[in-house]
Amino acid sequence: MGTDHAQLLHGFVSGATVTTVADIDSRRASELAASLAGVRVSTDALALIADPLVDAVVIASHDTTHAELTLAAVEAGKPVLCEKPLAPTIEECLEIVRRDHDRVRAGKTALVSVGFMRRFDPSYVDLKALTASGELGTPLLMHCASRGVTSGPGATSEFSITGSAIHELDIVPWLLDSPIVEVSWHAPRSTALAPALQDPQVMLLRTADGVLTTVETFLNARYGYDIACEIVGETAAAAMNNPATTVVDAAGRTGSAYPADWRPRFRDAYRLELQAWITALRTGAPSPLASALDGLTATAVAMAAIQSMNSSGATVAVTLPELV
Amino acid sequence: MGTDHAQLLHGFVSGATVTTVADIDSRRASELAASLAGVRVSTDALALIADPLVDAVVIASHDTTHAELTLAAVEAGKPVLCEKPLAPTIEECLEIVRRDHDRVRAGKTALVSVGFMRRFDPSYVDLKALTASGELGTPLLMHCASRGVTSGPGATSEFSITGSAIHELDIVPWLLDSPIVEVSWHAPRSTALAPALQDPQVMLLRTADGVLTTVETFLNARYGYDIACEIVGETAAAAMNNPATTVVDAAGRTGSAYPADWRPRFRDAYRLELQAWITALRTGAPSPLASALDGLTATAVAMAAIQSMNSSGATVAVTLPELV
Amino acid sequence: MGTDHAQLLHGFVSGATVTTVADIDSRRASELAASLAGVRVSTDALALIADPLVDAVVIASHDTTHAELTLAAVEAGKPVLCEKPLAPTIEECLEIVRRDHDRVRAGKTALVSVGFMRRFDPSYVDLKALTASGELGTPLLMHCASRGVTSGPGATSEFSITGSAIHELDIVPWLLDSPIVEVSWHAPRSTALAPALQDPQVMLLRTADGVLTTVETFLNARYGYDIACEIVGETAAAAMNNPATTVVDAAGRTGSAYPADWRPRFRDAYRLELQAWITALRTGAPSPLASALDGLTATAVAMAAIQSMNSSGATVAVTLPELV
Amino acid sequence: MGTDHAQLLHGFVSGATVTTVADIDSRRASELAASLAGVRVSTDALALIADPLVDAVVIASHDTTHAELTLAAVEAGKPVLCEKPLAPTIEECLEIVRRDHDRVRAGKTALVSVGFMRRFDPSYVDLKALTASGELGTPLLMHCASRGVTSGPGATSEFSITGSAIHELDIVPWLLDSPIVEVSWHAPRSTALAPALQDPQVMLLRTADGVLTTVETFLNARYGYDIACEIVGETAAAAMNNPATTVVDAAGRTGSAYPADWRPRFRDAYRLELQAWITALRTGAPSPLASALDGLTATAVAMAAIQSMNSSGATVAVTLPELV
Repeated sequence: MGTDHAQLLHGFVSGATVTTVADIDSRRASELAASLAGVRVSTDALALIADPLVDAVVIASHDTTHAELTLAAVEAGKPVLCEKPLAPTIEECLEIVRRDHDRVRAGKTALVSVGFMRRFDPSYVDLKALTASGELGTPLLMHCASRGVTSGPGATSEFSITGSAIHELDIVPWLLDSPIVEVSWHAPRSTALAPALQDPQVMLLRTADGVLTTVETFLNARYGYDIACEIVGETAAAAMNNPATTVVDAAGRTGSAYPADWRPRFRDAYRLELQAWITALRTGAPSPLASALDGLTATAVAMAAIQSMNSSGATVAVTLPELV
Repeated sequence: MGTDHAQLLHGFVSGATVTTVADIDSRRASELAASLAGVRVSTDALALIADPLVDAVVIASHDTTHAELTLAAVEAGKPVLCEKPLAPTIEECLEIVRRDHDRVRAGKTALVSVGFMRRFDPSYVDLKALTASGELGTPLLMHCASRGVTSGPGATSEFSITGSAIHELDIVPWLLDSPIVEVSWHAPRSTALAPALQDPQVMLLRTADGVLTTVETFLNARYGYDIACEIVGETAAAAMNNPATTVVDAAGRTGSAYPADWRPRFRDAYRLELQAWITALRTGAPSPLASALDGLTATAVAMAAIQSMNSSGATVAVTLPELV
Repeated sequence: MGTDHAQLLHGFVSGATVTTVADIDSRRASELAASLAGVRVSTDALALIADPLVDAVVIASHDTTHAELTLAAVEAGKPVLCEKPLAPTIEECLEIVRRDHDRVRAGKTALVSVGFMRRFDPSYVDLKALTASGELGTPLLMHCASRGVTSGPGATSEFSITGSAIHELDIVPWLLDSPIVEVSWHAPRSTALAPALQDPQVMLLRTADGVLTTVETFLNARYGYDIACEIVGETAAAAMNNPATTVVDAAGRTGSAYPADWRPRFRDAYRLELQAWITALRTGAPSPLASALDGLTATAVAMAAIQSMNSSGATVAVTLPELV
Repeated sequence: MGTDHAQLLHGFVSGATVTTVADIDSRRASELAASLAGVRVSTDALALIADPLVDAVVIASHDTTHAELTLAAVEAGKPVLCEKPLAPTIEECLEIVRRDHDRVRAGKTALVSVGFMRRFDPSYVDLKALTASGELGTPLLMHCASRGVTSGPGATSEFSITGSAIHELDIVPWLLDSPIVEVSWHAPRSTALAPALQDPQVMLLRTADGVLTTVETFLNARYGYDIACEIVGETAAAAMNNPATTVVDAAGRTGSAYPADWRPRFRDAYRLELQAWITALRTGAPSPLASALDGLTATAVAMAAIQSMNSSGATVAVTLPELV
């Protein structure tokens, strides 16, 4: 994702210049730099953050490094966009939230944004607008499905929640403008093609407004990368349309292609997220991206879902830690 | 439905002649008879069943009369197609099953068929064929939604299960060829447009093969009569296509119309069900329709769902009574 | 088609009994009869027509025999449904029309119907109803496409019109309720996969109401049997929906299957055509199917299109012969 | 369009800074400048072009000014992106082409690009890639339709070609990589809602490769802004998918919204066109946009179509003037 972010910032975002790329794998950093004119290379992320030539930082390193690097950027007073998850543990997320809130209480701007890019995907944006407009009536139900081709090496049942379903755990309350208050987790028959984890999984989410959401997460669906979302209101329902650009009639069938993974599907979402972030930074406006608190909240819901997984599917209430 | 059945049998089914129509409302029976040449009218259903001119009986009267009339037909040795539900109580269903099984044990053919017409809907038939063919890989998950425009007078939360969702309670095990073994019931925020009942409702069904099915039933969805079904397998997924005949571009939108209720949506299913029944009767083949036991089974699952409704959404195991 | 008609009449049409099947290939007739209880077999079509047990006749023999057999049925005073084309030549069509009109002038009913079954296809029926309802505004334009998988042996450029596009030559004026008055024929690059004929072909049809229709006929489109029709009016447009029953997600794509040929695509149209014919015969109502004059008219338009083909795509006026 | 271009360049394109905006309506220029930080305003386009602070010029003024301003930019040695049409007359287009070719012959880069933005629309880009990949087999036929809501004031039958269909006259040869060699123009019944012009119109285009393309242009289709394109090859066909982001079920229908005009439909195409232009300018690469010669060619085809319009739909060969 770091390569994608750098190339989007460099080639498709107004107002940003990529000056330095850091990667512990120096060869990968050099390959990227070669494709971006005038970019310096480093293997030291903390030095990059401290560099006075660097005005803002994007973090797309391993999840376990997110907290340290994000806190370093906050310490340096620099805006930072951290890929999801903000951090793997509630404690680390909480530390970041507290440090960012400390700044706000001191009259400064918040610095931390989290890369829940679906908030900038045109389909989700339009679903939120339709819901907010009242065209659907009061929302009652949602159905989400997130299907990928194959899970990466080492994927576990827990990772399916913290690494994939976490996007739904953020986007559902964002769409409804209501926090998730309880969750239950359910296991269908698991695919034989991925014996190391329970896959697919189903969750029921209840938001404070009473809406019930079914979430299917299926990392090894094989047939394609397929994201679905439907909101059912009192008088109407709305769902994502198929985002394919073309329909092909061939070999006895009519239809369209799925992307192979999330990058082509959400390329526009990533670009628009970066553009919104850069535009806000340039004009001094607050970041319109997900905040550190949003990152903490999604992780807290994920923890509740894992607790349900370990409790035979019992309904688990979501609890947020005290922020201060 | 009685009128629809008679008109389909008379005008669109090969090999059947409607000879007599009985209705306790004699005016309604006469109106129907006027549209069907040479049909006699009665207000006495039992007399109709006993009439030697009558070879086979279709029952579409009030649910509470189903058991008595079905048993009368069995007593008279006449094939009978009873609209769903076979009967409102397990006890009545069980009595019918036992009487029909008694015949089979005595070397005669079973007489009772139940009107789960979705088994003859071309979309469900093709979904079952796709699943059975192995094209989807082992089935893992199903998603069903059943939405109507408005509930009838006196609809209750329980009726939503016994009168509407019961179609899913029959079709899911039929599609998967595996019985439902447990069910849990969940309540989203309820529509303000139908204050007398919980609407929509969500159920999770588990079949013996381990497949988990989400079922949404929404009697007052307002926007149209909309039936959805998707089966997710290890390598592929399949869903119903939109059955509309035309797409219209008008007033800023492209799209197609929903039927107002189940009759146009399932007209072909009803016709094909009746044709399959008549063809079997003429050739002496066993009825390919849902059996009395299928009717009993669906009612037993419905009872388990109502028990979950009354137990805060607890998971309830489905139990079938001893048949003998 | 004869087999299909007999099986539909026997198994799926109310009020008809198939009593006799004639085929010059006696083995084929016997095979069909074996699948239909109680049907007699003959190799003499004229004897079948003369048989007093036969009330009505369906003709699905070779095109060159249509006129003789249809005239024999008229002579015998029996209703006859002749597959399209009514006859390969204008002269033969004209003779049939005159004989049927003679009956009408003598106060008897017309006997001849022509198998333009698309008039009973639910999509075309709904398109006609939408147009007639005024929902589209005044119709201005139509676009039709008819694509098959492979052409049969011996197919020629002319056959593409008389054997395939003739369905559009009938359905366009039927949809618009306005006759075709001129036609021009145009040749795109021809597929290398069918070197014996020009394929695809494009025609422009002008109806008396001024509507212009583009017609694409492509016998060797390879990918599937695909029929499209769109009507563009002053305020709205309407088109056929994809008639597939299911959508499958597999192997990187989402989509639905095409039928292999016209029989599954128009099975319902054939059934409903036969049912409408039988119902009219039983009630003494005039046949609602295409008439002999409709058959003559479509052939006359086909002749004009072939004249355009032989005149470098010149626009050719359609002329009907004097009927008396 | 000038406002749209400036806002896209300013807010969504990497590497560009809008420094000056010129409009003969100074109030409109000031309003735009107010929304773009640090932009100067002028009413003198020629002064803007001459301004040494200006590195490159976008022209979106009235069609009749295109040639003068484009030539001024060439004279000043500055890259210029001129909205379509390059100029309303062949003579003016030719002058621009010659001046740009003079530069190339002198060893300099061409300076003129033309705003045929559809070449950057993701659907057209993917259709071209599918065609070039051989997945469709040899292309044989194309069908294009371009429908708008209402024509602007003063629209004429000729404008429908030069102002709207000209996009198809450019994109068809671009998709097929083969120039249009002849064209014929055909008039359906015209809408009563726009009595000043023939609307809709149909054209048949033949490219040098033998592909025949049907083009419908309908400025007053009322129902929405709707662009369609299908390519039919020897073994497969491909068409644009519906680009809507959401599907809404409401009021008895399922479907999606059309944009009101071309700006939302082609917003991404405009952005990607501008980005491709700016990226090329910054790296010294040749412009990947339509060239002056492409602009001349599209105008020459438009002139042939108008000649067909004035010749009762005769087929007219496209002739390009001698370039030197």
